[in-house]
Amino acid sequence: MNVDTSLTPLTKRLTEIHHLKDACAVLSWDQETYMPPGGGHARAEQIATIQTLAHAALTSPETEKLLGAWVDMPTGQLLEKSHGELDDSGQALIREVWRDLTHAKKLPPTFVNTLERECSLAQQVWIEARKNNDFGLFLPNLRKVVALKLEETEYLGYDASPYDALLDEYEPGSTVAKLTPLFSTLRPRLVALLQQVRNSSIKPNTTLLSQSFDNEKQVEFGKMVLIKMGYQFDRGRLDLSAHPFTTSFHPHDVRVTTRVFERDFQSCLFSCIHEGGHGLYEQGLLAEHYGTPLGEAVSLGIHESQSRLWENAVGRSQPFWQHIFPLAQEFFPGQLGGVSFEEFYLAINHVEPSLIRVEADELTYNLHVMVRFEIELDLIEGRIQVEDLPAIWNEKMQDYLGMTPDTDSNGVLQDVHWSFGAFGYFPTYTLGNLYASMFYEQAKQEIANLETEISNGQLLQLKTWLNQSIHRWGRQFTPDDLVRQVTGQSPSPEPFLNYLEEKFSTLYSFPLNSQTT
Amino acid sequence: MNVDTSLTPLTKRLTEIHHLKDACAVLSWDQETYMPPGGGHARAEQIATIQTLAHAALTSPETEKLLGAWVDMPTGQLLEKSHGELDDSGQALIREVWRDLTHAKKLPPTFVNTLERECSLAQQVWIEARKNNDFGLFLPNLRKVVALKLEETEYLGYDASPYDALLDEYEPGSTVAKLTPLFSTLRPRLVALLQQVRNSSIKPNTTLLSQSFDNEKQVEFGKMVLIKMGYQFDRGRLDLSAHPFTTSFHPHDVRVTTRVFERDFQSCLFSCIHEGGHGLYEQGLLAEHYGTPLGEAVSLGIHESQSRLWENAVGRSQPFWQHIFPLAQEFFPGQLGGVSFEEFYLAINHVEPSLIRVEADELTYNLHVMVRFEIELDLIEGRIQVEDLPAIWNEKMQDYLGMTPDTDSNGVLQDVHWSFGAFGYFPTYTLGNLYASMFYEQAKQEIANLETEISNGQLLQLKTWLNQSIHRWGRQFTPDDLVRQVTGQSPSPEPFLNYLEEKFSTLYSFPLNSQTT
Repeated sequence: MNVDTSLTPLTKRLTEIHHLKDACAVLSWDQETYMPPGGGHARAEQIATIQTLAHAALTSPETEKLLGAWVDMPTGQLLEKSHGELDDSGQALIREVWRDLTHAKKLPPTFVNTLERECSLAQQVWIEARKNNDFGLFLPNLRKVVALKLEETEYLGYDASPYDALLDEYEPGSTVAKLTPLFSTLRPRLVALLQQVRNSSIKPNTTLLSQSFDNEKQVEFGKMVLIKMGYQFDRGRLDLSAHPFTTSFHPHDVRVTTRVFERDFQSCLFSCIHEGGHGLYEQGLLAEHYGTPLGEAVSLGIHESQSRLWENAVGRSQPFWQHIFPLAQEFFPGQLGGVSFEEFYLAINHVEPSLIRVEADELTYNLHVMVRFEIELDLIEGRIQVEDLPAIWNEKMQDYLGMTPDTDSNGVLQDVHWSFGAFGYFPTYTLGNLYASMFYEQAKQEIANLETEISNGQLLQLKTWLNQSIHRWGRQFTPDDLVRQVTGQSPSPEPFLNYLEEKFSTLYSFPLNSQTT
Repeated sequence: MNVDTSLTPLTKRLTEIHHLKDACAVLSWDQETYMPPGGGHARAEQIATIQTLAHAALTSPETEKLLGAWVDMPTGQLLEKSHGELDDSGQALIREVWRDLTHAKKLPPTFVNTLERECSLAQQVWIEARKNNDFGLFLPNLRKVVALKLEETEYLGYDASPYDALLDEYEPGSTVAKLTPLFSTLRPRLVALLQQVRNSSIKPNTTLLSQSFDNEKQVEFGKMVLIKMGYQFDRGRLDLSAHPFTTSFHPHDVRVTTRVFERDFQSCLFSCIHEGGHGLYEQGLLAEHYGTPLGEAVSLGIHESQSRLWENAVGRSQPFWQHIFPLAQEFFPGQLGGVSFEEFYLAINHVEPSLIRVEADELTYNLHVMVRFEIELDLIEGRIQVEDLPAIWNEKMQDYLGMTPDTDSNGVLQDVHWSFGAFGYFPTYTLGNLYASMFYEQAKQEIANLETEISNGQLLQLKTWLNQSIHRWGRQFTPDDLVRQVTGQSPSPEPFLNYLEEKFSTLYSFPLNSQTT
């Protein structure tokens, strides 16, 4: 596990580069939480300057020289010296630094500048376009962004599909060839499952979740759950922001945010749990590897698996609520005192197709992702054009979820991602769900009486297991290898589908056989 | 006023360097307000890395080349081109950048590193030493810091006294030769005035200020006063911190902090007003000059004049409280409802020698500063040794304030400044008081019925006058020139002494003649 001390000059430099990235993260956190409105323009300039410096420092001859002592720069093959002097983690460190540096160097600085500027502009136009339900306003900017992303795929290079080059940025090793069978398996079973839920005579009473819940008490309740999860407040914070997020400046300073609506019991709480899952990952990275790839999360998919595992596999489970529901009743006696456990549990697990991804339940959520994956793939592989997006979006929504958006704001304009060029990002949400089910199944096998422990409010065994199995490794393994190491299996949709089918057939009282394959 | 556009390459580079300093300021603000305890170690490293980069960028050949197009680098004389092409503000910009760059280049990077490390260490030891009342623990570190500061004076160079080199860092143009007559005039008249106050039969009832005042309401009250002063909350914030401070990341993002004690009506409020004065200065700098010396405050003394003017000349004045006291009674009816205006006004202006500078009233405050100035001067000029400091401190406290500290923690160990090498800083506090009186006298002459306006709650005329007279100039003039431009006079202690003598002879009912010269 220990990085050879002769790597010190390289890790020292990497750590200094990381200080710049962490400073940007602090500036962004402040921007989303406490910055007064007037500060926005200067803040964007400050972040841009520091990001440019970080990029320049990573791709500098000095860094390359330090790295070149261990690896053949053109091919990424470790030198004999590395095999002789470095242990596994040291070799992984070299592999990952080479990956980062090579990636950064493939993109000409002028291209990076243009991309960043156009994405920044497009994001501002997107805000206006969504507000005014005006895709036409966004269209010229989105065209430019897509063209730039296509240019980027050429710089980065790819074998089978240009989309692979983009996927690889968020989920190293991920390809169209690997994702397509996963989604092909998911789609029919999710659609069939959704149909059975909709045919069920059981109708959850969701109005109990839209009573008036005091905002401050909601945040206190979320905080209590975070503490039970093992999130450490002496190394973290919970604040409010428009969109919940997690950020880290060091494993000892990891911050989560939530949002709170008086008439929505779920939003604040499940944001806390979701971000808490991300936060535990960041707090679980090893401080001794701070500044190097070994001290960084391995991929967005694995990150999302941590948030989804806590939010859904734990946070919407019976054992969890056996412990938490009585506490919720104590916090909100007027609202929940007269509600039965069964009624409440059904309500927080109700399934209902909706137009907006971020509000979707755990069954329909992945159908939203699939719509985006298919559109992105067609767009990047050149089968459709940017101006076709609204119509294609609506068609696919009808196809997957049985609903056609009433407006583009509730349709193709709903997500921020494309405006900043994040094509290839959405699939990581579904990968996170698949990994989460695999990890949770494994945890149940390895932790004695896990669900009994959870129903007694003991969540720390699970947190420690995740620390040991996943968090501490940083980027030592690829995402696929990590999944195999933890679960003994390659990434697969089966555990997730089995989990959903079992859960919702029970909740909505229908037999399983018709949709299992 | 407009900077010639051909200065653009230089100002662009300066602005990027400023982005780094602003990032450090955000990181420091976060550290003092919201950072969880675990984040401290990484934060120090992050700030150190970015500060080092900012220093390297300022002293780089690239910056020097851009500047060298306008100024003869060895002498600082403007080139013909500058006289021909730059207006006054452009020439001032070149002068000040040359000053900064020359200063930075005089200090070898290894020396800067050593100084920063030793100061960081000394500061940590100082915290322990003060906690345990153990000067001996701090002594070895303080010796190193003093030795390094002496070394620094040699790098920087000086004419008459090595202390001048240190003074100049905080108050450009300030020298021992200029300060000595100021302090020589202040001392006897302050001591005589204090004696008359102590002989007075009038004894303010200060217990009314130490009733229980709800913390949240205190902060709300301070916020209300800040708004009346013209502090803009859409471009600023008020937060809590252990020690109140002001920081700025841009004129549109200027933040102040306060602290609040339930049994002290004065601490929160006067911290708000004091920091608000600093905040108005920073909000009053011109955004068009952001990133250059023309967009920076000119000196610590002028900065302190803004905080002291608001805190004392306004915030402890009769006109101010004629408007504010009824509001205070509304905020705190139980505590202040039955208190008379006269009783309250006397209480917030009571004079009482004390051991701790930061708690001192406006009369005795400068005696605390003089103790430090004389000790620093003797130390830097080599007449006393570091190990003599506790005894000398106590002797001077007895001499100036008639009190001997019970402990070194309440004596020589009370201030943080020396631990981080800030010798030459304290005199700027007194300069601030002197400037404040001169500025306020001038404001009364230039603003029609100023004190009547203030008694009606109209503080914005004063704020606007300060914006126009002082804030907008940035570093275009030296501190002395700015004072002369605003008041028509050179810096002098007379207005301040006249103000104190008139105020306290009235409050404490004694005749003026005996102590006026």
